[in-house]
Amino acid sequence: MSQFDNVSVVKKANIYFDGKCVSHTLLFADGTRKTIGVIFPSSLTFNTAASEVMELNAGRCRIRLAGESEWRSYSGGERFVVPGNSSFDIETLETLDYVCHFG
Amino acid sequence: MSQFDNVSVVKKANIYFDGKCVSHTLLFADGTRKTIGVIFPSSLTFNTAASEVMELNAGRCRIRLAGESEWRSYSGGERFVVPGNSSFDIETLETLDYVCHFG
Repeated sequence: MSQFDNVSVVKKANIYFDGKCVSHTLLFADGTRKTIGVIFPSSLTFNTAASEVMELNAGRCRIRLAGESEWRSYSGGERFVVPGNSSFDIETLETLDYVCHFG
Repeated sequence: MSQFDNVSVVKKANIYFDGKCVSHTLLFADGTRKTIGVIFPSSLTFNTAASEVMELNAGRCRIRLAGESEWRSYSGGERFVVPGNSSFDIETLETLDYVCHFG
């Protein structure tokens, strides 16, 4: 599925980490929310409120979940899950084009 | 109006100029198309196919249309029009958060 249909899109961008992460918010009829965005090469830590599924359209990164020592690598076509009320470290090696699904 | 409703959104980002410009494409039921995006501080030249209305949510830039010598300044809350089959120089002084309406 290359597009989302029948959604509402917030016009204003979300710009985080001095522009290292840029996203736009999509609101769905069932009350769920996703963001579509880009993370440029960087080392960042994200905090989560809701749980997240990060779906990668393109790019390459490694991530480490809070409380874990192991880094796991992901690239375009893959996805990873982050628990809610937590955090993860993400090292973006090639610009990530992503969809973030909030749980 | 802070959001667009009942639109289709292309999941994949448009990344131009080595990441200086990032946008996502919105498709409307009437067949028109807009992009929502960000331009980071930079000096760029954009070519246009269709005519464009650039609506600025935030940021500050100056632009010079093809064939003109004058630079005009725009900032959040303002918009400018660019003819089709043309080009414009844009100097982004503060990160632009924009909606581009294609005519």
